[in-house]
Amino acid sequence: MEKTAVDAYAILEKVRVQQPVVHHLTNWVTIYDCAQVVKVMKGSPVMAHAKEEVRDMVSIASSLVLNIGTLTSDFIESMKIAARAANKKRIPVILDVCGAGATPFRDRKTNELLRAAHIDIIKGNASEIVRVSGADVRTKGVDASYAGTDTIGHASRLAVFFGCVAVVTGKEDIVTDGRKTYVVANGHEMMTHVVGTGCMAASVVGAFAAVEKDLLLAATAGLVCYEVAAERAAREARGPAQFKERLFDELYGLDRRAVDEAQQVSA
Amino acid sequence: MEKTAVDAYAILEKVRVQQPVVHHLTNWVTIYDCAQVVKVMKGSPVMAHAKEEVRDMVSIASSLVLNIGTLTSDFIESMKIAARAANKKRIPVILDVCGAGATPFRDRKTNELLRAAHIDIIKGNASEIVRVSGADVRTKGVDASYAGTDTIGHASRLAVFFGCVAVVTGKEDIVTDGRKTYVVANGHEMMTHVVGTGCMAASVVGAFAAVEKDLLLAATAGLVCYEVAAERAAREARGPAQFKERLFDELYGLDRRAVDEAQQVSA
Amino acid sequence: MEKTAVDAYAILEKVRVQQPVVHHLTNWVTIYDCAQVVKVMKGSPVMAHAKEEVRDMVSIASSLVLNIGTLTSDFIESMKIAARAANKKRIPVILDVCGAGATPFRDRKTNELLRAAHIDIIKGNASEIVRVSGADVRTKGVDASYAGTDTIGHASRLAVFFGCVAVVTGKEDIVTDGRKTYVVANGHEMMTHVVGTGCMAASVVGAFAAVEKDLLLAATAGLVCYEVAAERAAREARGPAQFKERLFDELYGLDRRAVDEAQQVSA
Repeated sequence: MEKTAVDAYAILEKVRVQQPVVHHLTNWVTIYDCAQVVKVMKGSPVMAHAKEEVRDMVSIASSLVLNIGTLTSDFIESMKIAARAANKKRIPVILDVCGAGATPFRDRKTNELLRAAHIDIIKGNASEIVRVSGADVRTKGVDASYAGTDTIGHASRLAVFFGCVAVVTGKEDIVTDGRKTYVVANGHEMMTHVVGTGCMAASVVGAFAAVEKDLLLAATAGLVCYEVAAERAAREARGPAQFKERLFDELYGLDRRAVDEAQQVSA
Repeated sequence: MEKTAVDAYAILEKVRVQQPVVHHLTNWVTIYDCAQVVKVMKGSPVMAHAKEEVRDMVSIASSLVLNIGTLTSDFIESMKIAARAANKKRIPVILDVCGAGATPFRDRKTNELLRAAHIDIIKGNASEIVRVSGADVRTKGVDASYAGTDTIGHASRLAVFFGCVAVVTGKEDIVTDGRKTYVVANGHEMMTHVVGTGCMAASVVGAFAAVEKDLLLAATAGLVCYEVAAERAAREARGPAQFKERLFDELYGLDRRAVDEAQQVSA
Repeated sequence: MEKTAVDAYAILEKVRVQQPVVHHLTNWVTIYDCAQVVKVMKGSPVMAHAKEEVRDMVSIASSLVLNIGTLTSDFIESMKIAARAANKKRIPVILDVCGAGATPFRDRKTNELLRAAHIDIIKGNASEIVRVSGADVRTKGVDASYAGTDTIGHASRLAVFFGCVAVVTGKEDIVTDGRKTYVVANGHEMMTHVVGTGCMAASVVGAFAAVEKDLLLAATAGLVCYEVAAERAAREARGPAQFKERLFDELYGLDRRAVDEAQQVSA
């Protein structure tokens, strides 16, 4: 892979100007942070999960973010309805396979979702993505534990199989559609000490995908901006909580120069 | 309208001394912030929604705050039980019509609630209040989009129709019972970059209404104190997240001088 | 009682090294903070409540934390399944009887839980613990109101009756198995102005119990570390929100010297 450049900032600017509605069906742990990370980019987050209204909510949204962190059977049914409506409306669906591999129920429901509707972007950490790609990996709860060496291979096979973009977050993030692959080396170790940085990454990708049709580029650009903000937030942060506060504020104030200078993307 | 003064601080003091239990049935996004905003005023927030216990929880509460942000059919049923119990006990019921107009389901359930029990204070942003008043406005998710000029007219009609106080939050807040109207010009643009500032406003109003029988005054005073705290929090805040942290701390430490000097109320 | 010393820091170190999975079924208000407080100690929090998966999630966990703050009947059924699975696997179950005494429903469900499975550590504030011990105390929502003088007596009887450790948080915390009793005098008044400090205490105890078989010691050590962090966080904190941010960061960075110097334990 060789160092390359994407105009990540240009897409952040589009989010700020277009202020897309990003509809979420997400977990109860990080739901606030998912909404707020969209908000600081001037997007318009909507969190609604009643099966009677998700179809209508999708009709006013520009992208749909699903996260199975605290799934129940009923909740997955609402996700299916929302995802099918999003497919019909041709807006991108982002699925964060949070905790996939931790329990058989989670694996079964993830598979159900993947068969019930087209998912445009599947996002997880290495263990989760490897698990969804069909390999026999057991996740340690919701934290990454896969230490294998062929994450790109697994992600690529997953992307080809489902005709989607696969996003693997970690020390280096992988974004691939099975043919073209971007690796983003931005980010900071402090992110691993904050609950929800993974979920927020999916929401950021959701906001970028709402305004940029090239989903490989949208996901890559979203991760770049989010993780450049994280790098800046980590400077002099006393600990995870102050870091998290600053992450929001850095993303809010992020300018072209910061993004262009700090981005580390390979293709 | 002319500049007037309300003794907003005196009611905040009452909250601090009486420490009322403010029972919430609210959304899963901002539930923590709704509880915490009551807590920093030394109120005692309770969040409980099981249909088997809401009646009993109301029996120990001094006000009831309802917020339909992440409504489901079951949740609305619990709200009806709680609101009827509050009516019977004669404690004020505040309804935040969060997201009204975004979907037909939301409109239908809002109407159901308004017919099932008496709501003492209906609160929303301009789009939501105009929608609940019966006009044909489509909400853009949960963010305000109504740019009409007759918000006071809509709010007044709503207040008269339901025999309640209508509260419209925005750059200038409107508080009206259809005869008397207060306009609060406090607050700060930074509030629009933080998810939940609207929900918290309803919780503040709930705490003030718990200790002050004149609900028009209670709502006005609550907004004044909350928004004066916001103005102070916005000074030198790096961004929305630091602003939010400071908003809680400013409200916690707010004194008479700050409130009296900064309040901007017209009637 | 006489001043004594426990090696609280040694157990915090074990949490940091072993990084145990702490499975929670908790309330929707403070769920993020419960997860994050485990995370800053390098534990691995998992929040999952679907009845179809809690058994499997317990199988990868080292302790189970239950909190009835926003209970429903269905949620309690999931707790029972999880608690029985934890009993079978012989990992400790911590129950935070949040709001016990506030409603008959809450009391009934707490009793159901206590009969359905063995609870290893029952935690609450004075009102809640006294209530669960069978005395006729009415809780003021979720905030402590019991001002009786025999809290240790009530806690001891509760511990003996259920064969568990009872933890009473307050100005001074009581940790007892009915024979041996520790009193922890650490902590700070500022904790009473932050929603969720009690829930987080249960999660900290859960993480400590995951790595230390002596549960009386685990609970005591957990409270010591958490409250020493709170004391440090309170220094120069502008208010409750900044205090809370610093509480996480102080716990994250807590070292042996700070714990050893500040701990105030009697036995």
